[in-house]
Amino acid sequence: MSDEFYMDFALKLAQVAEGQTAPNPVVGAVIVKDGEIVGFGAHLKAGSPHAEVHALQMAGSRAEGSTVYVTLEPCSHYGKTPPCAMALIESGVKRVVIASTDPNPLVAGKGIALLRDAGIEVTSGVLKERADELNEAFFYYIQQQKPFVTLKQAITLDGKISSQPGIGEKITGSEVQQDVHNDRGKQDAILVGIGTIFADNPSLTNRQGITKRQPIRIILDTHLKMTNDRKVITDEQSPTWIFTGSEVEAEKMASFQQPHVKIIQLSRPTIDITELLTELGKRQVMKLYVEGGKTVNASFLKSGHVNQLITYIAPKIVGGNRAVPMFADLDVRQMESAYELKFQHVEVIGEDLKITSVLK
Amino acid sequence: MSDEFYMDFALKLAQVAEGQTAPNPVVGAVIVKDGEIVGFGAHLKAGSPHAEVHALQMAGSRAEGSTVYVTLEPCSHYGKTPPCAMALIESGVKRVVIASTDPNPLVAGKGIALLRDAGIEVTSGVLKERADELNEAFFYYIQQQKPFVTLKQAITLDGKISSQPGIGEKITGSEVQQDVHNDRGKQDAILVGIGTIFADNPSLTNRQGITKRQPIRIILDTHLKMTNDRKVITDEQSPTWIFTGSEVEAEKMASFQQPHVKIIQLSRPTIDITELLTELGKRQVMKLYVEGGKTVNASFLKSGHVNQLITYIAPKIVGGNRAVPMFADLDVRQMESAYELKFQHVEVIGEDLKITSVLK
Repeated sequence: MSDEFYMDFALKLAQVAEGQTAPNPVVGAVIVKDGEIVGFGAHLKAGSPHAEVHALQMAGSRAEGSTVYVTLEPCSHYGKTPPCAMALIESGVKRVVIASTDPNPLVAGKGIALLRDAGIEVTSGVLKERADELNEAFFYYIQQQKPFVTLKQAITLDGKISSQPGIGEKITGSEVQQDVHNDRGKQDAILVGIGTIFADNPSLTNRQGITKRQPIRIILDTHLKMTNDRKVITDEQSPTWIFTGSEVEAEKMASFQQPHVKIIQLSRPTIDITELLTELGKRQVMKLYVEGGKTVNASFLKSGHVNQLITYIAPKIVGGNRAVPMFADLDVRQMESAYELKFQHVEVIGEDLKITSVLK
Repeated sequence: MSDEFYMDFALKLAQVAEGQTAPNPVVGAVIVKDGEIVGFGAHLKAGSPHAEVHALQMAGSRAEGSTVYVTLEPCSHYGKTPPCAMALIESGVKRVVIASTDPNPLVAGKGIALLRDAGIEVTSGVLKERADELNEAFFYYIQQQKPFVTLKQAITLDGKISSQPGIGEKITGSEVQQDVHNDRGKQDAILVGIGTIFADNPSLTNRQGITKRQPIRIILDTHLKMTNDRKVITDEQSPTWIFTGSEVEAEKMASFQQPHVKIIQLSRPTIDITELLTELGKRQVMKLYVEGGKTVNASFLKSGHVNQLITYIAPKIVGGNRAVPMFADLDVRQMESAYELKFQHVEVIGEDLKITSVLK
């Protein structure tokens, strides 16, 4: 029971840094000696010390003979910092309790092996499920070198995102807006299509979130229709990356000289989602939050690269087929070939619902 | 606290008769003397004794000086049975605890007044909310003389009821089917349009429900396209009422001679939902469960006579606008004029969700 108690605390420590450690995972560590907590820490930013190192520093000489709770298997390799497994061994800890093992198949288990070889008792898998979910984007990124993609949409009960094409309409309540801003603060990047830029002119910043983190703003704009008066260009709070197709002229691209704006041209005339995600992966975007309309959403779903859907449902009915659906045509011609999801969480947010699902 | 305890038991007694008391409410009663339950009862069927009478019978002479818990204000008028308020007075009860007051504005409070005039202490409003919800259809029926209408639909997350027009497809899992059959068992009538009869050929019976109650089957069939091979005609388990427009010929109507089949012709060439509901009210249909397709659902919503929606959401996405939407066109041209609901309950049913909402 007490293993779960300390690991729960370590997970809470890990969680506070959600969204600020890319391309690293969030990790928390707690050190316990004779029933007392003698140190704790979290990994806060890539390049800065790992959670175990902070916790060992706090514990000082009391680390000797202690039990260390860490949410992710301690690393065994020399990266930007020395391996944590070595630091634990050198500090004379007696026992190490781990939640998740390393997601990288090349090094998984190596940290544990190092500890065991040094005579340290190791228990792993404590609160593993929660720890795995907390780092699901990192785990996916490590294995696929692509961002973990969340499609977020607000719909009416009958699946409409607006009552008619080309306009942006508020569907859900202010509590949902707050929740979306909180979620934006945990992402590395937010993506919309150029259609949304012209329909809504959003600034795509995290204005109401609990944290003030500003994710990168990514616009899919095949023909570079962007104009200099749009908020994502005039508002310099966070980087704006515009992805275009291969046939945009250099002259047009040169018309955006703002330091926070970057134009990235892909290799094909139309934007290929797989290529886009590969490019984002290279630029260390680990978590991507897609706030697209029906076309962008359909492109992502068809690409096979959607990890999660967050669907806010408002208690409203629009009816008919004139209104704008959640997804453009997906080539589904019978129910058996529908895209299949698994509902993970359902929450009541103000008057609306938030449904989190994963692709099956 | 103990008032709530005994009223909770009385509500559970009332609940067992849900769906079998029309046009009467469900009512439960519990009699307590010196801390012991000395009698209890429920109203089971219109024309049979009221809950209080059953409970008093069970209590016998121990009713004297007792406290009676009853989920609905005892009646004060001579109907098919003598007034319960009189029976309680004659039995010498000392205190009466009531959940809901009588919904009929002409008699509300009269039962309580009778009791008080006889020197009985009365407490009302104990677990009122639960009691009101249990009889919400009856309360509505008493005031409007029309059935309480529940629109039930199974949709994909993106609001589709099938992937293409004219075919019936299974969307939700077997747990939802079970739940639908349970809900059917609590209804007085189930309604579909003739389109559903030809697309799915349903029998519209309660085959898997916990109870074996069979609601009346109602088909909206403006031009009487029904054929004698449909299951609602060949299966005689429960009555089938076919409502038609005014222009159907008598000869065509005469082709249905089955004793369980009734053809009811309305006064206009097309079916008017208000007239339909008035006719059903006259025939003592208190609870109507509409299992229609997009057209029937749109007609009901536009008529303004929908009380509740039960929406099963399957973890599936179909996409596009070729698939069949939940509702046909509703003349909603902007989000501000969308039909507004209030979400009441969300349940996980197998892999699907069940959302219960009411019209605002």
